[in-house]
Amino acid sequence: MIILQKEITLRACNRGFHLVTSEIITQIPELKTIRQGLLHIFIKHSSASLTLNENADPTVRTDFESHFNKTIPENAPYFMHDTEGSDDMPAHLKASILGSSLSIPITDGKLNLGTWQGIYFCEHRNYGGPRELVLTLLGD
Amino acid sequence: MIILQKEITLRACNRGFHLVTSEIITQIPELKTIRQGLLHIFIKHSSASLTLNENADPTVRTDFESHFNKTIPENAPYFMHDTEGSDDMPAHLKASILGSSLSIPITDGKLNLGTWQGIYFCEHRNYGGPRELVLTLLGD
Amino acid sequence: MIILQKEITLRACNRGFHLVTSEIITQIPELKTIRQGLLHIFIKHSSASLTLNENADPTVRTDFESHFNKTIPENAPYFMHDTEGSDDMPAHLKASILGSSLSIPITDGKLNLGTWQGIYFCEHRNYGGPRELVLTLLGD
Repeated sequence: MIILQKEITLRACNRGFHLVTSEIITQIPELKTIRQGLLHIFIKHSSASLTLNENADPTVRTDFESHFNKTIPENAPYFMHDTEGSDDMPAHLKASILGSSLSIPITDGKLNLGTWQGIYFCEHRNYGGPRELVLTLLGD
Repeated sequence: MIILQKEITLRACNRGFHLVTSEIITQIPELKTIRQGLLHIFIKHSSASLTLNENADPTVRTDFESHFNKTIPENAPYFMHDTEGSDDMPAHLKASILGSSLSIPITDGKLNLGTWQGIYFCEHRNYGGPRELVLTLLGD
Repeated sequence: MIILQKEITLRACNRGFHLVTSEIITQIPELKTIRQGLLHIFIKHSSASLTLNENADPTVRTDFESHFNKTIPENAPYFMHDTEGSDDMPAHLKASILGSSLSIPITDGKLNLGTWQGIYFCEHRNYGGPRELVLTLLGD
């Protein structure tokens, strides 16, 4: 059983939901050596998040952005934390609802995702800048 | 320290929230051999999900279904992804909000759940069909 | 590669979101011995939860409480599970939306959190009492 960890940086993305499966896999060639295990992906930020969802139709990602903007609006009258801009407090809420990490099974050297599953990087700020991830692989 | 992985299929369920703790435990007799560790349960789909919640009163699961239908309605005017039916885009959103995996501690050969915790399989499609899970156990 | 598990109790907290990063780290001095790994934190309850978010400004935690109370109101007309008080069913929903566990990378003997990330204990009941956590560390 081995464990292996590395930090990578995701390029700055526009606010919204982005498919990053290949971008992540490319950076961990060690995946091929693991017969069975888990890949843990962690984002070191509190206003961006990670989730798994449909990997084929880009309108799904557009609808995610519309839905979260509608249900977690900017400038809600009860927000007190507003000094960093109207997109900041909604970004914190979206990040906790979607989550800051993913754990994905590794089987025979590959991520064992369903046919329609892809990794979404969710940028909730208007200008989030590059984002740091910690990847931890474990398995045998 | 060992790691062990297997894929299982959950029978097709009606749209809604279903308690599947025993159904999962039955399929991993190896649990008994692990003194301390983790069970990772992963669903290979983007319109069904997994969560932990109250295991006793079935009305909790009914209220989950009512609440998610109310807050993530079908036919929202801003949905663009609608070719697979009005239940499809809400299903994707519910799946990401609830999440596609669970990690549960194993202690002395058993899942170390709280007294009132059970594993919910959350079927968000009207006709989702059988669903595939990957179970990964690790521990010593 | 080692694995280590312990159960701890969080003191009873008021309903709301509480920063507990130091309270947790203090209870696992073994963290220092792990070069690379993961800390899994699990809450054995279905009406309290764990999340990671902003660790500096307390109004973020106040806004979390306001937002979840607004979007998951007590006494929703469709709730059937109401015998344990009007705060009970919303607590179950909040717990599943935020989640019952966290997995955080460990690097060089420390939690590898971002500068602004802290561990939130989220008490969703009016009187939740002390809450039990299971901590599982693994790594080398």
